Amino acid sequence: MDNRLSTGLGFDAHRFASDSRPLFLATLQWEGQGIEGDSDGDVVVHALIDACCAAADLGDIGSLFGVGPQSLGSGMRGDAMLSTVADMLRSRGCTLRSASVVVVGNRPKVGPRRVEAQQALGSILHCPVSLTATTTDGMGFTGHGEGIAAMANVLMDVART
Amino acid sequence: MDNRLSTGLGFDAHRFASDSRPLFLATLQWEGQGIEGDSDGDVVVHALIDACCAAADLGDIGSLFGVGPQSLGSGMRGDAMLSTVADMLRSRGCTLRSASVVVVGNRPKVGPRRVEAQQALGSILHCPVSLTATTTDGMGFTGHGEGIAAMANVLMDVART
Amino acid sequence: MDNRLSTGLGFDAHRFASDSRPLFLATLQWEGQGIEGDSDGDVVVHALIDACCAAADLGDIGSLFGVGPQSLGSGMRGDAMLSTVADMLRSRGCTLRSASVVVVGNRPKVGPRRVEAQQALGSILHCPVSLTATTTDGMGFTGHGEGIAAMANVLMDVART
Repeated sequence: MDNRLSTGLGFDAHRFASDSRPLFLATLQWEGQGIEGDSDGDVVVHALIDACCAAADLGDIGSLFGVGPQSLGSGMRGDAMLSTVADMLRSRGCTLRSASVVVVGNRPKVGPRRVEAQQALGSILHCPVSLTATTTDGMGFTGHGEGIAAMANVLMDVART
Repeated sequence: MDNRLSTGLGFDAHRFASDSRPLFLATLQWEGQGIEGDSDGDVVVHALIDACCAAADLGDIGSLFGVGPQSLGSGMRGDAMLSTVADMLRSRGCTLRSASVVVVGNRPKVGPRRVEAQQALGSILHCPVSLTATTTDGMGFTGHGEGIAAMANVLMDVART
Repeated sequence: MDNRLSTGLGFDAHRFASDSRPLFLATLQWEGQGIEGDSDGDVVVHALIDACCAAADLGDIGSLFGVGPQSLGSGMRGDAMLSTVADMLRSRGCTLRSASVVVVGNRPKVGPRRVEAQQALGSILHCPVSLTATTTDGMGFTGHGEGIAAMANVLMDVART
């Protein structure tokens, strides 16, 4: 089979919620304030999905799962969304080689659960996934604690069509 | 010929214009408010050009096209700028393998014209180009509708020197 | 030796300092207002380190150098931090193939010293490093001059374990 190497970039940002919903990030549940969104607001998963879609030319998370409370993705957990995308990649002969995600926000503190988060993401995508985290020193919407952002990059072998 | 694989990252952001200029993005004209800039303000093209320049060690869009109303790039359309860069890459023996661009902003809605935009960019760069789009949930300068941003990543085979 | 190709993404942002400390960026000293941080606040180096850590699965800059005034990284210059990471990569059989960094901020003006900065970074990492710079048109925390941000991407050959 003849493959080409493809890169995909993804980005997502969501507000912290003012209600008591649980916090999901990188498919794990964390202590603290949850994140708004039609689905569970998992910006790490959403950025990863957009990066995968970009690399495989599958559109983006909005075209796959829809937007708004009546959409397919409404109420969907990040691990289920990511599994759906992993299945689509497999059925199209796309193989992920590497993935890297950066979380930008004041919380949660990712470091203590980095390995667990990386393994959770990697077991769904069947490729090594790295997760790093940083803040913006109190600046901008992430620094003010309004919300959280993530950006992702993947390398993928894509079957030539 | 002996090549090395190179990555290039690019970013750009511009304000929406308050006058009636047309809106150009990803080389296409769209309905709605235009974007400020010395050239046509096409942040997708500008981020892609910076990513290409980075991968090929060609400087950046500012060093190629200048800055300000008297610059080479002043008034230049994104497709012409991107074609110029594609010619420079070819003359240096650089071959793009893959490109991915993320647009961050409230509008225009990219989805309905994603395929058209990807084909327009890909036909100039002679490589597969993916375009995804997202918002920042009303947060920050993109969320407030002040402006629009784009980030791009390319993979390129560069002739060893 | 059997290697796999890995991608790493990194991001960092810091405030400009209100005192008279010197400005370090991309390991060079520049004219103008310095940057806050436990170390010398060199966002280019910090984003590069996070990208390298991500690609090699070494955690991130916080897990390597600590956070706060009592940390290992406190008062450390960017070139020393980057050298430490380069040594770690070498000892683990990781080989950088390409690196690209984007600086987002109003100053310093990178263009006139781009080649010098790229060579300084590349000589520490033993791989080609590209540096591009852009502004956000007066928008957001970088546009308001509050601080400076950088994002980085690296490609790395990682020994399979």
